[in-house]
Amino acid sequence: MLLKQLREEVLEANLELVRRGLVLYTFGNASGVDREQGLVVIKPSGVDYDVLKPEHMVVTDLHGKIVEGTLRPSSDLDTHTLLYREFEQIGAVVHTHSEFATSFAQAGLPIPAFGTTHADYFYGPVPVTAPLSDAAIGGRYVHETGLAIVARFRGLDGSSPVDPLAVPACLVAGHAPFVWGKTAHDAAHNAVVLEAVARMAYRTIGLKANAGEVSQGLLDRHYFRKHGKDATYGQGNPS
Amino acid sequence: MLLKQLREEVLEANLELVRRGLVLYTFGNASGVDREQGLVVIKPSGVDYDVLKPEHMVVTDLHGKIVEGTLRPSSDLDTHTLLYREFEQIGAVVHTHSEFATSFAQAGLPIPAFGTTHADYFYGPVPVTAPLSDAAIGGRYVHETGLAIVARFRGLDGSSPVDPLAVPACLVAGHAPFVWGKTAHDAAHNAVVLEAVARMAYRTIGLKANAGEVSQGLLDRHYFRKHGKDATYGQGNPS
Amino acid sequence: MLLKQLREEVLEANLELVRRGLVLYTFGNASGVDREQGLVVIKPSGVDYDVLKPEHMVVTDLHGKIVEGTLRPSSDLDTHTLLYREFEQIGAVVHTHSEFATSFAQAGLPIPAFGTTHADYFYGPVPVTAPLSDAAIGGRYVHETGLAIVARFRGLDGSSPVDPLAVPACLVAGHAPFVWGKTAHDAAHNAVVLEAVARMAYRTIGLKANAGEVSQGLLDRHYFRKHGKDATYGQGNPS
Amino acid sequence: MLLKQLREEVLEANLELVRRGLVLYTFGNASGVDREQGLVVIKPSGVDYDVLKPEHMVVTDLHGKIVEGTLRPSSDLDTHTLLYREFEQIGAVVHTHSEFATSFAQAGLPIPAFGTTHADYFYGPVPVTAPLSDAAIGGRYVHETGLAIVARFRGLDGSSPVDPLAVPACLVAGHAPFVWGKTAHDAAHNAVVLEAVARMAYRTIGLKANAGEVSQGLLDRHYFRKHGKDATYGQGNPS
Repeated sequence: MLLKQLREEVLEANLELVRRGLVLYTFGNASGVDREQGLVVIKPSGVDYDVLKPEHMVVTDLHGKIVEGTLRPSSDLDTHTLLYREFEQIGAVVHTHSEFATSFAQAGLPIPAFGTTHADYFYGPVPVTAPLSDAAIGGRYVHETGLAIVARFRGLDGSSPVDPLAVPACLVAGHAPFVWGKTAHDAAHNAVVLEAVARMAYRTIGLKANAGEVSQGLLDRHYFRKHGKDATYGQGNPS
Repeated sequence: MLLKQLREEVLEANLELVRRGLVLYTFGNASGVDREQGLVVIKPSGVDYDVLKPEHMVVTDLHGKIVEGTLRPSSDLDTHTLLYREFEQIGAVVHTHSEFATSFAQAGLPIPAFGTTHADYFYGPVPVTAPLSDAAIGGRYVHETGLAIVARFRGLDGSSPVDPLAVPACLVAGHAPFVWGKTAHDAAHNAVVLEAVARMAYRTIGLKANAGEVSQGLLDRHYFRKHGKDATYGQGNPS
Repeated sequence: MLLKQLREEVLEANLELVRRGLVLYTFGNASGVDREQGLVVIKPSGVDYDVLKPEHMVVTDLHGKIVEGTLRPSSDLDTHTLLYREFEQIGAVVHTHSEFATSFAQAGLPIPAFGTTHADYFYGPVPVTAPLSDAAIGGRYVHETGLAIVARFRGLDGSSPVDPLAVPACLVAGHAPFVWGKTAHDAAHNAVVLEAVARMAYRTIGLKANAGEVSQGLLDRHYFRKHGKDATYGQGNPS
Repeated sequence: MLLKQLREEVLEANLELVRRGLVLYTFGNASGVDREQGLVVIKPSGVDYDVLKPEHMVVTDLHGKIVEGTLRPSSDLDTHTLLYREFEQIGAVVHTHSEFATSFAQAGLPIPAFGTTHADYFYGPVPVTAPLSDAAIGGRYVHETGLAIVARFRGLDGSSPVDPLAVPACLVAGHAPFVWGKTAHDAAHNAVVLEAVARMAYRTIGLKANAGEVSQGLLDRHYFRKHGKDATYGQGNPS
């Protein structure tokens, strides 16, 4: 069986999403990539979480061709593989329909950086894609979903570019969030924090419709407190 | 004992509603129909869920006449049987007072199709009936509740017709949702998803009062991804 | 030990409030009355729920004089005893600071009868008292809280009278709800439903600021479906 | 091992925050002070709560110099120690990013005293600091966070002074709440109540944008019911 450890990590990331209340039934999926072998491990489609085992994970190449596994992979596979090809430093992708982040996506609004909880994880607003065109929806839709994310981060849709390592999440307009990280554990963790941040942003807007975002200084201070060579949070970086 | 398997499925659907937090105390009911025998299995009225057993289920004919069972059937029985008579392809009906779907019903508003979570299950907005007239309320009220649902789906109340197989739920104005499906499992599943979709619609409106619904293309893409002969979600359709 | 069974019922009602998430720490209390003996059983003040036993309950007369018990009774005792003296047909009183009902009380707004869930339990809006005067607050405050409730139901504060048996709950302005019933079980049950109804009313207003209440016909239909000699809900009335 | 009992109390306070849903992952910290020895016990940074043991707690002096412990202390240590130096009567400090209190902090708004639940614990609105200046953020940021709290309570930022014993909590603008108390138990308890009070204040504003605060009389009545020599709540004050 290929990639035994990565399968376990991907399964564990999927289960973390369930434990934290981010997925209802089978509405979510996580994957991880082995960059050396160019292989992706992803959850199968529509299988109950409580029976999922590492051997159920599906292994594909970076273009979604199945390399190992008898189950059908997550229907969002083509978005995952596109993100792996385009964002070369990420190691895992998570997709959920978590309530508050999805509500921002449905409203077509980014999640503003209202506070330090946000700044600890996302170095600026979490962006939202442009709506997919009818042509994109009618074509290779799942692939096009990935293209919309990439277009948003590269500024190809007319918006300001965003660094996918500094802001490891994107809302797909009318759909839901995609989140990533260095490892499957990190991607799931980021997805859980995204939902918490979205909840608080929703409440903040409810209290003050024109609430301002944190200053650039506060954004810098908190983001670099947890990231990069000068990080001071936790018990030291193993990597 | 008649319809042993259907009793178990109906009981299980009732319990799923409890597990998912859709019912408080005894505020909900599920039923299933055996089309060959023309018999309905429904939860008894006002019995605690934690003591419910398959033998407590009540069996009636399609007009609500009790065929087997010593307990009084759910007080909403006449709505269930009317839906079985009028929507001939449905196999089960669920009624809850779940918080967010009921809030839309109380506001007299349909649940807009704001995103793909919605489109995966409901091929357009979840409609709301017209308010019941005083005559209907003062007459065969429970039966009239069913008539209001049928009138809404057939467009008899002046609204646009809706296909009950494509949108397996209706909000009864000032009351709460009724949901259906091919099986008791499906109906309960749809009721759980309806509540999740209602929560997100509520949040979406909270973020953007005039939020737009998904495009027809996105609605088609997601709905037919999970339904019909070209469905690509999950591990294949057993039926 | 006096009133063994009533002590157990009152304890159980207190615990039901905890199980249903209506009380945080010790923010709540339930009591019951024995009309024949003219004695009240009430929770002691500020004791953790997880160590409460029937023998901890305090027994007082209808004017709050302790008849049995070594612990100090709930600090809201004088409100309970006043309600027993003034509303002669009630058998139990519950007080909580449950989130949504308390929010209506804090806003000084009644809970409108927006739907059938409400109508099944409360035959009209759940009223809110007038704010207590400085003199009342500075005087026998807990007693005055009861007087404000009574004044509201009798229409003594200029509002329309309400029948305490038909609407078994009142919001005290700037404070929280008091709820009652025939038995301790009923009073706790009504408090749980009140919170559910308050949640849905909050959402309904969020969706439609000027949402209308249910018609008088629907109010009648649902209320009398569960109450009175013609009730059709459940498995028959033991009383 | 120094301060065995205080370590246990501080650990227990940290765990209470988790049990009550106030902290996600490691987003929170509690500390306690031994005034006689001038030593602070604080949670280590970024360690999972489910493996925390008393011996993991870090002991520092009142200026944050580590006296005992091999783990890195909470990254918020300098805020805690400043509060101990400036508010000489407090015995413990808690910091969380609890959802509703943090949302008020993000909106830059105090939590109004809308009801008696609030008044039982906080003798007036829970204040919010002024936003930190770029210089403060770029300097000794964690220390400056404490200075902003002290400035707010002393009225040094142009606002009205507040007594830190009467209002044992402060919202740091764009960040989250800091809460304190006489003991670690009290500080955690106050943090839990603060979140409950923030939830209800949010709902109250949602129902009535211009809702008024409780009267001075009601604030006095409820606050002094639970505090000071004339307190009448509970079973008597051990201290």
